Amino acid sequence: MRRREFGITEDTEIRDFLQEMSFGFLGTVGEDGWSRVTPLNFVYDGEYFYFHGSLAGEKMKHLTRDSRVSFTVAKEYAIIPSYFTDPKMACPASAYFKSVMVRGRVEKVDDLEEKARAFTLFMEKLQPEGGYAPITPDDPAYAGELKAVALCRIVPEAISAKFKFGQNLKEPKLSAVTSGLEQRGGELDAETIALMKKYCPAHREN
Amino acid sequence: MRRREFGITEDTEIRDFLQEMSFGFLGTVGEDGWSRVTPLNFVYDGEYFYFHGSLAGEKMKHLTRDSRVSFTVAKEYAIIPSYFTDPKMACPASAYFKSVMVRGRVEKVDDLEEKARAFTLFMEKLQPEGGYAPITPDDPAYAGELKAVALCRIVPEAISAKFKFGQNLKEPKLSAVTSGLEQRGGELDAETIALMKKYCPAHREN
Repeated sequence: MRRREFGITEDTEIRDFLQEMSFGFLGTVGEDGWSRVTPLNFVYDGEYFYFHGSLAGEKMKHLTRDSRVSFTVAKEYAIIPSYFTDPKMACPASAYFKSVMVRGRVEKVDDLEEKARAFTLFMEKLQPEGGYAPITPDDPAYAGELKAVALCRIVPEAISAKFKFGQNLKEPKLSAVTSGLEQRGGELDAETIALMKKYCPAHREN
Repeated sequence: MRRREFGITEDTEIRDFLQEMSFGFLGTVGEDGWSRVTPLNFVYDGEYFYFHGSLAGEKMKHLTRDSRVSFTVAKEYAIIPSYFTDPKMACPASAYFKSVMVRGRVEKVDDLEEKARAFTLFMEKLQPEGGYAPITPDDPAYAGELKAVALCRIVPEAISAKFKFGQNLKEPKLSAVTSGLEQRGGELDAETIALMKKYCPAHREN
């Protein structure tokens, strides 16, 4: 595992974020050396990232040729307008976000038990309210489907996380952004303030 | 420009979507042949995609070596639970989304007028309420900043759009998903129903 930027050293924080996010972006490289970025639903079980899809598409063609991939998950929490900290210049305009970048190798999963386990994780993540029969290869209704569907896992070689919440700001700008967000009161602004307090060194010193 | 999947042939729909989305994912390829997927704020002026960033990072190193990139923007509208259409099997679980994939070449922008114009587009997109002085190289307060900041543009060679809103569904499943979304009434569910009506062939035939 590589560097953890912006002080994100807690595996649980990265896992919680990956569990909250329903989709990420897979980077593959084609025969012509050109990259392709494909949005995908995924699950992470703490060891592998799983995704599924059609065997016929361009993405799978890339993966058969070169199993090396990158996978990025990101969520934007707040656009920070310039006027929070500067009455004239546009330059301080910024965005606060969480992102996790993975580098790894893709393997096709053929084992039906592992397939059933991975699809169960998908359902638990994306349909937590239930409403389906347990997924197992022992159920004849699922056995054929499990064989037919293509499932892949990314074996991570490096995971890095960047949680950007104004860690570079000093007072009085830090307080200006915090009170700007308080006054704006957008959907994620309260959560953003809490994350600023959690991650900003200046706040941590208090 | 390449294929437009799922019947998205209207440039204005793609442009509206790109204008609504604050960030996308840039795919680059490193010296070792490994891809990297970087989340970025961006603007699209109908001709170029612009992004900015630090000249020092890994992404810029990739771009200096190989200017070929892909860039993908995606938004998930609805997780479709399996029980909308099947009381037992998990298999029909799905997700509806819009995605736009771009393939192109990156060029560094040094012209100060173009830089000022692109950053103005950024501000108009991400800070539409204003609150900053007009960005122009004639303003001495901006001139130095405009020189110092790194701006890139993607010159698109192909743009494809995939808007997935149950176009593959037939009756009675189409109606089952629609009424499932109606009953659930989540944040984007009404909008998702409207997009299903817009894009589903079965609906269009009515």
